[in-house]
Parts: sequence; structure tokens; C-alpha cells
Amino acid sequence: MGKLVIVGTVAFDAIETPFGKTDKILGGAGTFIGLAASNFNIDSSVVSVVGGDFPQEYLDLMSKRHIDVSGIEIVKEGKTFFWSGKYHNDMNSRDTLITELNVLADFEPKVPETYKDSEVVMLGNLHPLTQMSVLNQMTTKPKLVILDTMNFWMDCALEDLHNTIKHIDVITINDEEARQLTGEYSLVVAARKIHDMGPKYVVIKKGEHGALLFHDDNVFYAPALPLEEVFDPTGAGDTFAGGFAGYLAKTGDYSFENMKTAVIYGSTLASFCVEKFGTERMQNLTDKEIYKRLDQFKSLTQFDIELT
Amino acid sequence: MGKLVIVGTVAFDAIETPFGKTDKILGGAGTFIGLAASNFNIDSSVVSVVGGDFPQEYLDLMSKRHIDVSGIEIVKEGKTFFWSGKYHNDMNSRDTLITELNVLADFEPKVPETYKDSEVVMLGNLHPLTQMSVLNQMTTKPKLVILDTMNFWMDCALEDLHNTIKHIDVITINDEEARQLTGEYSLVVAARKIHDMGPKYVVIKKGEHGALLFHDDNVFYAPALPLEEVFDPTGAGDTFAGGFAGYLAKTGDYSFENMKTAVIYGSTLASFCVEKFGTERMQNLTDKEIYKRLDQFKSLTQFDIELT
Repeated sequence: MGKLVIVGTVAFDAIETPFGKTDKILGGAGTFIGLAASNFNIDSSVVSVVGGDFPQEYLDLMSKRHIDVSGIEIVKEGKTFFWSGKYHNDMNSRDTLITELNVLADFEPKVPETYKDSEVVMLGNLHPLTQMSVLNQMTTKPKLVILDTMNFWMDCALEDLHNTIKHIDVITINDEEARQLTGEYSLVVAARKIHDMGPKYVVIKKGEHGALLFHDDNVFYAPALPLEEVFDPTGAGDTFAGGFAGYLAKTGDYSFENMKTAVIYGSTLASFCVEKFGTERMQNLTDKEIYKRLDQFKSLTQFDIELT
Repeated sequence: MGKLVIVGTVAFDAIETPFGKTDKILGGAGTFIGLAASNFNIDSSVVSVVGGDFPQEYLDLMSKRHIDVSGIEIVKEGKTFFWSGKYHNDMNSRDTLITELNVLADFEPKVPETYKDSEVVMLGNLHPLTQMSVLNQMTTKPKLVILDTMNFWMDCALEDLHNTIKHIDVITINDEEARQLTGEYSLVVAARKIHDMGPKYVVIKKGEHGALLFHDDNVFYAPALPLEEVFDPTGAGDTFAGGFAGYLAKTGDYSFENMKTAVIYGSTLASFCVEKFGTERMQNLTDKEIYKRLDQFKSLTQFDIELT
């Protein structure tokens, strides 16, 4: 069983969907990744920064899930990163209403000493230089480095992004971002071009249409579970990444075959995440619930063909 | 092994894609369905109508694939149905440039005597009353009736469509059409509402995102094969339906489990269809090519999870 170090935002989110709206609630990529990975009973640490306004109970909530929070710096005189967004009726698109960087503007991640030899590093969506800084702090070369990013960094820090993704093993990226990064419409061609940029494994997230895992000429496809209702998509991509990273850290097997299973775990956890606002559904998820849903994924995708 | 009777257009298509354009070539839902189903070496018949301008060689091409063409009426003084369309750069949307109904305007399908006891009936996209007329000509109750339709009939013949789909077992429909027919965005809810309209099985086609098969509380998901290049999507949905119907007619097993496999066959054949213009790729497809691609579908979707 390997250790997992995660860098990502720990934040306040205010979310509006066709089903309702929230005040400031717990959010952030690092939070969603950490909560998802905590289902695998591994040693994990979230590296982040919050302001003096960040409630101790949120940190306790993470500690209770056995997430190490000693790498979450508290800037007493600062305010926590705040994001607010509103989803459209189809739940596939959203408008950002507010982005207040606050303490995130000067964030310099500090990996706790005991996590500098982590086998798995999960670089949540942040400035590529911030992601690189975490990699540089590792004293032992990690077995697996996973990076998530978004179009924002392609627009304003493309060169830094290119430099960082040279050093990673797996990238998780959504379909539109893969197209933007490569200028290719075909996801097969886009994945190959991203592969050439560094990552041996490319995971393309397609939201309600599932996710694709590419490695050399191999492709694996994990559907999203068809749901009656997507209540709040916030954090689904991060939860996917956290499940993926957590499962790989737990098993210590970084083969393509095992990554398939990791993708299924990621999709499974993401299917819970969207059922309630923010992190609510992820705070008390049980193994029994997860196993039941993994079983649904099996019947959703498995078939028998006799090739004669 | 059961007999399969197919009703659908046999037509001329003129297609423009970012990769090129064609003159009038062989097209039509009945043609694509028939060619796809012909891979299962079953007795199948296409019921349709063409004009005096329809080349004998196109009929020969179907006969050579052991498709019975005696149900394709030739109206000597009439002209064959003609459709022309242009695909946008993303290949997911298209503009219809020309629709000339011609002999299709007065089409009254006549099922050949020897096919009135077919086990499987495939009602290709046509006016719901035309589809119903085929059902009414059956002398033995078919084991399985499959219907394909489109938004056009929801706009202009909704009541007839509702009456026809009461009498069928399986509907194949695309995602946007399922939403239009039910007024529901969630495909899970839409499938349940369509189920309540009559069909015990609902297949929702999502193009490059695959297809979903619903039956009571069961769901099965078949991805589309990720392709480097979609050359021409024309006929992919009909090819899917033809593969689905042909496999079921061949096996005579209409269980949900076997329909999963039928959906995979449909997706597999559709993945060939889009590789060339019109029916070109479907005219000489070999079993060996199909088996190889089925194998790709297996590795694309199959995974191991030990639930402990």
C-alpha cells in the first residue's frame, strides 16, 4: 500500500442548480480528491492553503476520514479561495459567477516531510508551476504522478503547462480541453498528441458520457452510470481523479490492466458525488454502498460474445 | 434461425463531409439495415420502393449479399427517393440540402408472401402508418418487432407514432429524439416513459458516445469504438439497427442478456459504416474483419474487479 500526496484547492463554493442553491459550502479540487481517495484506507495528505475564515470543523471532517491535513497551511489574516457558479438546465454547462483567489494568489505548497517519499502524487488543477513545485519537493521519485488541469491554464500558462506535463505519467483532462490542447477534434488523435507531450497514460473525461483511458494503442472505455438525476456536477471530475489515484495507491499496481479498474472506481465514486450538493454525499460514503455500485457498473458494461 | 423482414427506404444519397463529396450513391435506411443484417447469413427481405432510375446493379449488390429484393417495388415511371446532406466540421450535426420524396410519397409496402411469417420485423424510419401497415400484413405474430423513428414524425405524425409504438417490442431512437418524445432530459427517465408507451426494450443511440439498452430496471451500455476519423456518419444508426436485428434473428434468443450482445454487434457494424462514404464499407465486409473488431470491443469495455 502506497502513500498518496495530493495538491489542490480547499475552498468555499456557492452553487446554484435547477434544483436549488447553497450558501458557502466546503469545496475545492483538493477536498474532492482527498475525500474520494479516503475510501481506500491509504495514507494520504492534502497540500493546500486556506484563510482564517476556514472552519475547523471542515478540517476535522477530513481528519476523520484519515486524511492528513498538516499540509493545509492556514493564513490567519487571509480569506479562503471562493468560487461561485450556476449550472444551466442541461447540467452540462455552467457560468462562473464569482472567483475570489484570496490566499490562493500567493500559494506556495509545502509537502509534509513524511509525504516527500509518497509513491503516488496527485496534482489537482492549479497553476502548472504550483504543480511542478510539489514534484520538485519529492525526495524519492514517485512511482506514479497524475495531473489534472483545465482550459484556463492553456489560455494563460501554456508554456508552463507543457513543461510540467513532461514530468508526469497520467493526465486527466476533459474532452473539450483535450481538443483545445491539441487542436484535434478526434479524441483518439488528441490522446496520441498528448501522449507525445509526455504522459504515458491519457484519461479523457466526457462527463455524462464516461471516460476514456489511452495507453499506446490500447483504449479502455468506462461509461458514466446513467442517473435519473444529476443534482450537482461540482467536483465530479476531481472525485473521479481521487478515486483513480486512491485505488492505484492502494494496490501499488500501475499497469494498464489495473488502471482500467482504477477508472471504474473513479467513475463509481463520481456517480455518488453528483447526487447531492458539494461534498455532502462523499462525506459518509460506505464500502457497502461503493461495492453495490461497482456491481451496477459490471452489469452495465459486461457482455458475453462467443467468437467462433 | 429466424427470418427477418425489413421495411425502409432504398434511396439515392448525395453526401458532403469535410473529407469530400459524392454524386448520387446508394443509400436509404432499408439498404443500410439490410446490408448490416446480411452479415448473419439469415433469410432477410427488404420491403421498399424505387423508381425506374434505380440501377439494377444496386439490386444485384443486395441479392449478392443474399438479401431478398422481391419486396422492393419498382415504379418504372417514377423517380427514386433522393436525399442530400452536408456534415459540419464536428461530424455530429448536418444540414439537409435536398429531400425529394418522389416514389416514396405514395409508398404502400407489400411484404412478400414468404416473409409474412418472419420471426423478426425491423421497421426502419418511415411514416408510422407505413410501419404499421407492414405489421398488419404479418400472418403470424412476430417474435420481435423493432422500430426506428426520428424527430420528423414526432413533429408531424405524433399520434400515429404513439399508436404504432404500442405494438412493438424494441424502439431504437437517438438521445435528442428520446428527449423530444418524452419532454425529459434524463435519458433514464425518458427511457422509462417510452417503456410506458409500449416497447419493453428501449435503445437510445448516442452517436460517438455509444448506445444504452433499457429493460425494466436493467441498463446496458455499449460504447462506440473510438475512431481516429469518422469519414461519413450517414447510415450509422440504421447499420446499428440492422446489426442488432440480424443478430437476434440469427440466434432466436430475445432475452435481455442476448440483446446486450446484439447491441455490441450493432455498434461494431456501425463502426465500419462510418469509415467510408455511404454503403461502401458495408458492401464487402468479412466475418474475419467483424470478429477482429468485436475483440476490440471486448478489450475496450471488459475489466476485472474483485469485490471483497
